[in-house]
Amino acid sequence: VWIGDDAAVFGPIEGRLLLTTDQAVAGVHADLELVGLDDLGWRAVARAISDVAAMGGRALRAVVAVAGPPTTDLDLLYRGVGACAEAHQCPVVGGDLSGAPGTTVTVSVVGHLPTGGPVLRSGAAPGDAILVTGPLGAAAAGLRLLRGERAARRASGPVDEVLIAAHRRPRALLAEGEAARLAGATAMIDVSDGLAADLGHVARTSGVGFALDHVPVAPGATAADALEGGDDYELVMTAPRADALVAAFRHVGLRAPIVIGACTADRSQATVAGTPIDGAGWEHPWQ
Amino acid sequence: VWIGDDAAVFGPIEGRLLLTTDQAVAGVHADLELVGLDDLGWRAVARAISDVAAMGGRALRAVVAVAGPPTTDLDLLYRGVGACAEAHQCPVVGGDLSGAPGTTVTVSVVGHLPTGGPVLRSGAAPGDAILVTGPLGAAAAGLRLLRGERAARRASGPVDEVLIAAHRRPRALLAEGEAARLAGATAMIDVSDGLAADLGHVARTSGVGFALDHVPVAPGATAADALEGGDDYELVMTAPRADALVAAFRHVGLRAPIVIGACTADRSQATVAGTPIDGAGWEHPWQ
Repeated sequence: VWIGDDAAVFGPIEGRLLLTTDQAVAGVHADLELVGLDDLGWRAVARAISDVAAMGGRALRAVVAVAGPPTTDLDLLYRGVGACAEAHQCPVVGGDLSGAPGTTVTVSVVGHLPTGGPVLRSGAAPGDAILVTGPLGAAAAGLRLLRGERAARRASGPVDEVLIAAHRRPRALLAEGEAARLAGATAMIDVSDGLAADLGHVARTSGVGFALDHVPVAPGATAADALEGGDDYELVMTAPRADALVAAFRHVGLRAPIVIGACTADRSQATVAGTPIDGAGWEHPWQ
Repeated sequence: VWIGDDAAVFGPIEGRLLLTTDQAVAGVHADLELVGLDDLGWRAVARAISDVAAMGGRALRAVVAVAGPPTTDLDLLYRGVGACAEAHQCPVVGGDLSGAPGTTVTVSVVGHLPTGGPVLRSGAAPGDAILVTGPLGAAAAGLRLLRGERAARRASGPVDEVLIAAHRRPRALLAEGEAARLAGATAMIDVSDGLAADLGHVARTSGVGFALDHVPVAPGATAADALEGGDDYELVMTAPRADALVAAFRHVGLRAPIVIGACTADRSQATVAGTPIDGAGWEHPWQ
């Protein structure tokens, strides 16, 4: 049952259910002078679906609440919402619309785990390998390109388009999340706030430290983009046996995750190539 | 799993699932010069749970996204959210928080139907009785009291407090909705926009007209409050046999619903005591 009745109806659904909600606010999560309202809508859907991916779940249905001024181009916004939902095979089954001073898109997604339990943030143990689904920093580099922060923007080429698309149209890695869960990942999170911050969440809730050997940098991005840039939506996971995860990904035709380091027993440890990551004063010595 | 992981986990859940999302926007759904941020939070939760009630479902879990300026008193807001969730036994299991120019609370609720299907808006047939769970207009009268629109506000007494509470702290009628579904209601909706508007939705989607004999008015409210005032969250339902619904409600200890009229085959019919309800020009002749 689509928008037009009081609630959407679906199922029954086997296994445990997942529920998450995320907002994309104009001026906070997207600068509408740089990207379109369709990109804002896409981002809101991708953020919520990525949370399901980070639990190892399958996305089932989404509902979308939009608040904004009367001048909001809703057709454009919903085109982005619909395109992202379709790209992730997660139908939008309902919504709400209201006036408001600023434009906010709130997406809630129901997912499920057909069998077994979720991969939480809290399951990492000392000695576990740390892996990431791909190189990082493309979204941050794309945003920088859009802002024209490079003195001379390079001649537009395939790499730039990829970087800008990474910022405008991020993908949630549902297949990768499920493969990691089935292959025995002990903890997992999506990189929405940046690798340093998100891996920090895993470390804190798991009671471990982490020692990274290196951070894979997306082509055209910088080391700072890769470590601190958010909104890549790559998945970071831990597992006692990295080779089992790599094999499982390859078995289902996915790009193998990259081993970037290991969890340590020292909760206070957060290093890249032996150098502490400690916020403000950190100078990216590994670049 | 509570806020702090990527998504909440619950279930497995038997039967079909319901999913709905609703917003409460400061200045649109609540005037913060008249009510508190806690009331705004309460309203957002009640609106979403009421959508589940209107399908005849049980509310299972809620997620709450809040956007607002940095000065927002989040403690106060979440107190209202939590109180409403607790009153309806629907735990809040996750959320999102963001800066934004205005304050918006978006609540998404998952519900379920342990057996059978939902009561849709589209199932009414000519000849079906129309019933409402209680007298209407209290929330609209309470809002008017808060606005001081009555030249001389009456001495504060029990009725006024009830009216103001009806506006500030509406309840979703979950037990009533489920009783109606189990007793064979053919269509149902919650009164959020006003009886005339919401019954109009049922009539349009069902392809029927309606002839109301009378509209029960809450003590202290006016006939206009009862017909056009929103946010009462009473349920309006249709059924071939009104007595079956009345008996079912009494059987589970609920106040019996009130028969207010019947569905007709003439889709253009929308009357109260024989007088058409036709928007702007309508002068409440039945008051």
